[in-house]
Amino acid sequence: MSIALFIQHRFSERWKDHLTTLLPDQKIEIYPEIENPDMVEYAISWKHEMGVFSQFKNLKVIASLGAGVHHILKDESISKEIKVTRIVDDQLQKDMASFVLTQCLNVSRNIFQYLRQQENKEWKLSTYKTPEETKVGILGMGVLGKATAQLLHQNGFQVLGWSRSKKEIDHITTYEASELNQFLSQTEILVCLLPITKATIGIVNHEIFNQLPKGSSFINVARGELVEDADLLQALEKKQLNWAILDVFKEEPLPEDHLFWEHPKVVITPHSASLTNPKTASKQLAENYLRLEEKKDLLNVVDRERGY
Amino acid sequence: MSIALFIQHRFSERWKDHLTTLLPDQKIEIYPEIENPDMVEYAISWKHEMGVFSQFKNLKVIASLGAGVHHILKDESISKEIKVTRIVDDQLQKDMASFVLTQCLNVSRNIFQYLRQQENKEWKLSTYKTPEETKVGILGMGVLGKATAQLLHQNGFQVLGWSRSKKEIDHITTYEASELNQFLSQTEILVCLLPITKATIGIVNHEIFNQLPKGSSFINVARGELVEDADLLQALEKKQLNWAILDVFKEEPLPEDHLFWEHPKVVITPHSASLTNPKTASKQLAENYLRLEEKKDLLNVVDRERGY
Repeated sequence: MSIALFIQHRFSERWKDHLTTLLPDQKIEIYPEIENPDMVEYAISWKHEMGVFSQFKNLKVIASLGAGVHHILKDESISKEIKVTRIVDDQLQKDMASFVLTQCLNVSRNIFQYLRQQENKEWKLSTYKTPEETKVGILGMGVLGKATAQLLHQNGFQVLGWSRSKKEIDHITTYEASELNQFLSQTEILVCLLPITKATIGIVNHEIFNQLPKGSSFINVARGELVEDADLLQALEKKQLNWAILDVFKEEPLPEDHLFWEHPKVVITPHSASLTNPKTASKQLAENYLRLEEKKDLLNVVDRERGY
Repeated sequence: MSIALFIQHRFSERWKDHLTTLLPDQKIEIYPEIENPDMVEYAISWKHEMGVFSQFKNLKVIASLGAGVHHILKDESISKEIKVTRIVDDQLQKDMASFVLTQCLNVSRNIFQYLRQQENKEWKLSTYKTPEETKVGILGMGVLGKATAQLLHQNGFQVLGWSRSKKEIDHITTYEASELNQFLSQTEILVCLLPITKATIGIVNHEIFNQLPKGSSFINVARGELVEDADLLQALEKKQLNWAILDVFKEEPLPEDHLFWEHPKVVITPHSASLTNPKTASKQLAENYLRLEEKKDLLNVVDRERGY
C-alpha cells in the first residue's frame, strides 16, 4: 500500500518531505514516477491531469491538497467508490485576511509608489493616511470577507461590507445588494472577495469603478473572472483608479503578453494570498492515511453529490 | 502679529491650509515671502536655515513641526528669550508601529520578491510563513520599540526585544546588552529602532548581520548613521541577508550614486515611516498661537537646557 502525489505547480517535493516526517516508513511517490500503480491506494491531488486515476485500480481515496475539491469532482472518470477528502483549515481564512491587510497597508503607506520611485532613483515624500482615516470596502461578506473585515478593523481601518443580503457584523458598516452605489461612493480601497457564480462573472466593470471616489485602489483576491480587465485598465488610464493589486487572473499563470505585467499602476502576485499550510494539511493527510490503513472512518470526507 | 512657516521638504502649502482652516482671519506667511518681518511673533520650523530668525526682531515663539527640536536647539543664534515648543502626539509611535508591521508582512508574504518578479514577467509562487511562524527582533525598546513590538504581537508575530538594560514587556521575549548573540541567533526579521548616541553609531555592522540566521531580513527605521552601509551590502551579496528595507540613510535624500538605489534586494522609502500628522499638529500649533495672543501659558514648551 502506497501514497502517490498528483500535484501541479505546488512543490511536490516539499509535500513529500512533510509527509515523510509524519509517516517515516511509508512509501510516498510523486506521479509520474510510480513504481507499481497497483500498490497505490491513497492519492493526493491538486489539479491532477484529468483521467489520470484510471491507471490506479486499487485506489481508495483521493485527498485534495486544499479546501477546494472542484478539481477532483469535475473529473468524471473517477469511480464513485473512491472517497474524496478535503483539508479543513481555519488558517486559510487567516492568511487571506493577513494578505489583504498587507496590501491595504501598502496602499495607505504609499509603498508601491516608493518602489516605483526607486526604479527612477526618485526621493519624494508623500503624505499618508492612517488606517483610521481610510475606508476599505469589501465586496462579498462570506467566510473570507468577514475574517478580512475583522482583521482590518482590528488594525484601525474603517470597514464597509457589501453582500447580496444584508449581514449584521460587529464594527462593520454593511450594505445589501440595492445599496451598492452608497457602498462604492465611500470606498477608498475596494477589495473583491466575491464568490464566482453566473451572476458575478464580470461584475467588477466600469460601472463599479466609476462609482468609487477618484483615486481609489482595487484589490482582487477572489477570481480573475469577476473583473473586466479592459475596464480596469481604462479606469487606471483615466486615474479613476490609483492602484490595481491583483492576485488572481482569468488565465493563470498570467500570459506574458498581458498588459497588466508592464502597467506601472498594477501590482501582480501569483495567486499567493492564501496557500494550504503544509504543516496543518500534512497532519490531516497523514491522519487519514493511517485511518485508511486501520479501516477507521476518514475525516473530512466530501459528499460528492453536494459538492463539499 | 503674524505667523510664518520655515519648513523644508515638508509641504508648506498644506500646512498653511490646515492652519488657515483653524485660524481663518490670521495672516500666515511662508518664508521667504514675508511682508513685514517685524510683525512675525510666531514661527513654525522644520529644519529651518541656521541663523534665519535673527531677521525677526519681535519673534516670541518657535514651534517645531514635529516631536524633535534638535533642529531648533542646535541653532545658537536663537535668543534665549524665544520660547521653543514641540508637538506631542501618540500618533507618531502608532504610525511607526504600523509602518514596521507593513514591512514585516511584506517580507513574510514575499511581496517585494513578487514585485521584482513582475519586472521580468515571472510568475513563480513561493511558500510563506505566517506571522505566528515568524520571529521579529527589535533592536531598541524605547517608546517606539515598545509600541512596534505590541502591534506586531497583536498581529501574531513572535517578537523579541533587545535593549541595553533588560525590560519586562508583556508577550515580548526581552534580552539585555550581554544577550545580543542569543537575540540575534533567533531573529528572522531584524528591526532597528535604536536611538543615536556615541555608543550606537555604526553598531549595525557585519558582526550583527553574521549572527542572524542565513536569509534573514533587515528593516531600518531609526537613523542611517547606525548602520555600516558597506557591511550591509556585503551581507546581501553573500545572501546572509535576504532583504534590506531602508527608510533612513546617512545622507538624505539618498545620493543618486549610492549603490542602494539599484540593488535588487534593497527597498528604499524616503524617511516616511512616521510623519507629523497635520491635523493633530495644526490643532496644537493653533492652540499655542491663541495662547500667545491671549498671553496665557504655552503648551509643550521645551526646556532648552535639558533638550526636550
